[in-house]
Amino acid sequence: MAFVLRPVAWVRSARGEAMDDGWDDVAAWIELDRDVPDEALLGLESFSHVVVVYVCDRATDVPPAPFARRPRGNPEWPVVGIFAQRAKDRPNRLGVTTCRILEVTGRAVRVEGLDAIDGTPVVDLKPDVAQFAARGPHRQPRWVDELMAGYFEAP
Amino acid sequence: MAFVLRPVAWVRSARGEAMDDGWDDVAAWIELDRDVPDEALLGLESFSHVVVVYVCDRATDVPPAPFARRPRGNPEWPVVGIFAQRAKDRPNRLGVTTCRILEVTGRAVRVEGLDAIDGTPVVDLKPDVAQFAARGPHRQPRWVDELMAGYFEAP
Repeated sequence: MAFVLRPVAWVRSARGEAMDDGWDDVAAWIELDRDVPDEALLGLESFSHVVVVYVCDRATDVPPAPFARRPRGNPEWPVVGIFAQRAKDRPNRLGVTTCRILEVTGRAVRVEGLDAIDGTPVVDLKPDVAQFAARGPHRQPRWVDELMAGYFEAP
Repeated sequence: MAFVLRPVAWVRSARGEAMDDGWDDVAAWIELDRDVPDEALLGLESFSHVVVVYVCDRATDVPPAPFARRPRGNPEWPVVGIFAQRAKDRPNRLGVTTCRILEVTGRAVRVEGLDAIDGTPVVDLKPDVAQFAARGPHRQPRWVDELMAGYFEAP
């Protein structure tokens, strides 16, 4: 079984190649694909945040990339499965990131905090709904906090 | 341009058909596809929540479903674009839901709050990382709170 996904929008970003950190500083727009009508964005301006689902089309699928590895190859962090980390070299190469909406204009959304490079195909946009956030006590390992220290903001 | 996605896991759920509300009460497991080795889940038990990305394979794509409509067809709610609502009948039919991890056992994850029916193909699992949550002031329209009132818990 397989599913064929088509881009609904495209990332226009000041960042043209993948880097580890500092994504909040990168100006980014999401522009609707020409096959998608304006009305698809109607009402999105009533939300503060949007969930962007995109394909890391220049990343490596799994396999050939391994199903478990040290995040960023850092020897101080444990070997973890690809489903316990957010590395871009993963099965189906999907990225999911919640971004702050700065502006919705006709056929585009200007956002802050989008960790996708210029030209990345977007396969879905969803409004960020408070009730969908993680509920109950939250827990994550220490290596994640170390890795994320400068991910959005410079450390 | 198009992307072919293959299931990495499958939803095993007590709920066999789509319903609007009460998803927290539904027992659900995510089982790895036979082509995915156990190691893909290594370390996921260190996280409290997992982000499940799945294909609503029994939903209707857009088009033929419209790009804008009233959520649940409710005349008291506004017409909004498909990217300003989370209806399952959407372009590429992707669902993204953050679930509480109850147990990780070998090749399966038992979760709470998964709004996907039995047999749904899963195309990615990501650990829920606090730093990826919506940052800054949060805002959503009133109709969303009305719609979500009983979505996870019975109202």
